[in-house]
Amino acid sequence: MVYRSLTRRYQVSPMSTNPAYATLEARFRKMNSVAEALSVLSWDMATMMPEGAAEMRAEQVATLRGINHEQITAPDMGELLDRAAAEPLDAWQAANLREMRRDWIHASALPADLVEAQARAESACEMVWRQARPAGDFKAVLPALKVLLGLVREVGHVKAEALGVSIYDALLDQYEPLGRAAEIDPVFDHLETFLPGFIGEVLDAQNARPPIIEPDGPFATDRQKALGIRLMEVLGFDFRHGRLDVSHHPFCGGYPGDIRVTTRYNEDDFASAMMGVLHETGHALYEFGLPSGHWRPQPVGRARGMVVHESQSLLMEMQVCRSKEFAGFLSPLLKSTFGAEGPAWEPDNIYRRGIKVSRGFIRVEADEVTYPAHVIIRYRLEKALIEGRMELEDLPAAWNEGYQRLLGITPPDDRLGCLQDIHWYGGAWGYFPTYTLGAMTAAQLFDAACHADPAVMKGLAGGDFRPLLGWLRANVHSKGSLLSTRQLMTQATARPLDPTVFETHLRRRYLG
Amino acid sequence: MVYRSLTRRYQVSPMSTNPAYATLEARFRKMNSVAEALSVLSWDMATMMPEGAAEMRAEQVATLRGINHEQITAPDMGELLDRAAAEPLDAWQAANLREMRRDWIHASALPADLVEAQARAESACEMVWRQARPAGDFKAVLPALKVLLGLVREVGHVKAEALGVSIYDALLDQYEPLGRAAEIDPVFDHLETFLPGFIGEVLDAQNARPPIIEPDGPFATDRQKALGIRLMEVLGFDFRHGRLDVSHHPFCGGYPGDIRVTTRYNEDDFASAMMGVLHETGHALYEFGLPSGHWRPQPVGRARGMVVHESQSLLMEMQVCRSKEFAGFLSPLLKSTFGAEGPAWEPDNIYRRGIKVSRGFIRVEADEVTYPAHVIIRYRLEKALIEGRMELEDLPAAWNEGYQRLLGITPPDDRLGCLQDIHWYGGAWGYFPTYTLGAMTAAQLFDAACHADPAVMKGLAGGDFRPLLGWLRANVHSKGSLLSTRQLMTQATARPLDPTVFETHLRRRYLG
Repeated sequence: MVYRSLTRRYQVSPMSTNPAYATLEARFRKMNSVAEALSVLSWDMATMMPEGAAEMRAEQVATLRGINHEQITAPDMGELLDRAAAEPLDAWQAANLREMRRDWIHASALPADLVEAQARAESACEMVWRQARPAGDFKAVLPALKVLLGLVREVGHVKAEALGVSIYDALLDQYEPLGRAAEIDPVFDHLETFLPGFIGEVLDAQNARPPIIEPDGPFATDRQKALGIRLMEVLGFDFRHGRLDVSHHPFCGGYPGDIRVTTRYNEDDFASAMMGVLHETGHALYEFGLPSGHWRPQPVGRARGMVVHESQSLLMEMQVCRSKEFAGFLSPLLKSTFGAEGPAWEPDNIYRRGIKVSRGFIRVEADEVTYPAHVIIRYRLEKALIEGRMELEDLPAAWNEGYQRLLGITPPDDRLGCLQDIHWYGGAWGYFPTYTLGAMTAAQLFDAACHADPAVMKGLAGGDFRPLLGWLRANVHSKGSLLSTRQLMTQATARPLDPTVFETHLRRRYLG
Repeated sequence: MVYRSLTRRYQVSPMSTNPAYATLEARFRKMNSVAEALSVLSWDMATMMPEGAAEMRAEQVATLRGINHEQITAPDMGELLDRAAAEPLDAWQAANLREMRRDWIHASALPADLVEAQARAESACEMVWRQARPAGDFKAVLPALKVLLGLVREVGHVKAEALGVSIYDALLDQYEPLGRAAEIDPVFDHLETFLPGFIGEVLDAQNARPPIIEPDGPFATDRQKALGIRLMEVLGFDFRHGRLDVSHHPFCGGYPGDIRVTTRYNEDDFASAMMGVLHETGHALYEFGLPSGHWRPQPVGRARGMVVHESQSLLMEMQVCRSKEFAGFLSPLLKSTFGAEGPAWEPDNIYRRGIKVSRGFIRVEADEVTYPAHVIIRYRLEKALIEGRMELEDLPAAWNEGYQRLLGITPPDDRLGCLQDIHWYGGAWGYFPTYTLGAMTAAQLFDAACHADPAVMKGLAGGDFRPLLGWLRANVHSKGSLLSTRQLMTQATARPLDPTVFETHLRRRYLG
């Protein structure tokens, strides 16, 4: 019996002063491993998987999700969480326990048949929407959307009771923990007051300048890819722990330690892939910088929420990489990458091309200035629908009215109107505000970084991102989910989200 | 409460005449999904994963394996298997239950500390071996190998009791279900008697002919890849359900419905990648042809074992793609792929190059004729070691004696001798015989296919694999694990494994 003497040496003492908390950590570590495996499956599905394998992959994903759902809703989980709360915990452990409880509430608040009914209604509605959108036929999707909205409100209602918040806040909490409409409303009110007039001023100013020169393509995919990789390295992406691949919808997947960024190349326009890569790299750098070691696989080691996550991608894409300073760095790099020359490739033209503003119907094509208008319209509408202050039948008219009021344009049809985004039709209600909250958070964090360390801005002009990344690591990334978004902002920038910082940024960049 | 009326419509009746069996099917289906996820993780690790992510991946794999181990060793599993055996089952269900029980015995027979000790001893020994092999230092790995062999014998002992077979058969059963040394011995005795003299005759005959002409390289990787894909298509590989990628060690991974073949390109020698791709495509076609639908995710839907699996790769690589007929098809394809011409590319030269025999020390470089000698030496030695008829200290001398006796050469050192293969040092005892049993099975199946349908051989000469694939699907692939290997061979070829068929094949090809 050789093996008995062998194993004894390796046994680890199970002693601990907080046994319930320790049990929870072990369980969440296991759930995290399964979640990481799910990330790989999901990346593979978008980038590598042969088309015929979709059905099997869906079953694998459902099985692994089911395993984690069983874990988080284990019968003794509530009791363990209660017992752990009475144990002596330090600040990180206490925050970890708070995040565990949040996960547990979101997973266990709903009865199983409601979860199932919602999943089914989401697939059904999304499927109808895929037909209805190109046809601009809102009426076709209305019945399925009504069923789905009914279930979403039911979900919000149940979670609202468990969390002790309003229905809308309960839905928002799924994407932005502790996000509250009461804090969003004044911020969006501020934007809504200043934006319509501001957009007009910016357009007048931009139209008064000589036209922007379009660079001549085509731009070979392999050159675009080399450019993307070079820029990712400049920003601080570590290719020993990540990759760049191609997918239909660009995303940043994987997990800290193995980040998978994707993009899509258009040989007529190098800027779309380039700006996409810079955006996703912002997400990636956040993930890279999250707590390592013990906290990595724990809930407190995760990204804070969608607002901070979006702030990190928009900080890189909008604040940094569309700046005048960065255009100066980009110009020679673009020239050498594409073997190009001429006025189209000069820093000023590149800069002006990157910040060009226009009034458009489509959110995903919007620029930095008009984007918040798209989001505010959606936020007001989804809140009214969730709170029962509006009927779905009235959505198209209300949508068009919002566009006229905030952007001065009226969509000619619902394809360019309320049918354009997948979110509502796929069940993601309460998600939209995080985009613009992220943009504002980005402005405020970047402003604080530049004030804290003059090397930040000086570095960017020379392609040296280390001072910026150092500040972000210390003040944002390494915090994981230790703090609420509001606490994080207050510690990092000396005040909670303040819409005047974003306004100042826009005024300086577009009218300065 | 909209959702309650919604869900009712979708409920499926849980009625069944065999409730225990139905419960088992549901559990094994879930385990299969997890196993498929593990295949994707493993393929990703070998082909795509950035180097820095290895540690995290190891934890994901351990977690998913642990989840499946918990499932298969659930406390009520033994009772469910017993209850299901008393339920009314058809032939496929009964075979499925038999395979479930086999899985259960292999998973649950061992005490947890033995499993752990073995896993640890395997890693430890393999690590020492990685240093000891290049140094040719058997003594350095001897202590770790002794510990490992002790544990392997212990494992064999426990499983032997559970299965009611000998220790060696219990180990063999892990790779080749129902494989028995008593059936292998006479077959290998036959080969051992005829091979040494035959090898001499073949070498004399080959040396008497004009020298083979080596094709001039280099051979660009992208051309080699295009060739590989073309040949995979010719053989019947369905790229809607599979891929070809690059990895350090070529393999066929994934699962039916999503098969991931890999290869490695050498620009000096196109044949290594090409023959590797043809070999792995043989494995892939077997997986593609396994039962679909209901049986796909069940144990009875899996490949029969390593012998039949290896027979399918060797049938393609050795029986078909090194045949004179296939060389005729290959010649113009190679010429057009590499834009080459001249006598090196003529069918006869390609054929002779593909079947060139030589006495060598290294198994993985061996040709079709000498390969069985490498395997028989290992089989005899591992059996003696497992059965305690030999000491590990005597392994190098016994190894060298075997090479002298069967191949007429003596390895100059243990690097080219008993240290060359990872199997024993990584804990895979009882694996080696499946290679040569696979080669013999391939010969017998191919012989039966050619006799059953003259279109088989005629098709191959024109690159039409459909008649061959049709016969293999009907007689081998679609059977999954319904039959034992012996039953499958008897049904497909009218007799169990018969070494004279392999002998006849060798005599015809090498002295005919």
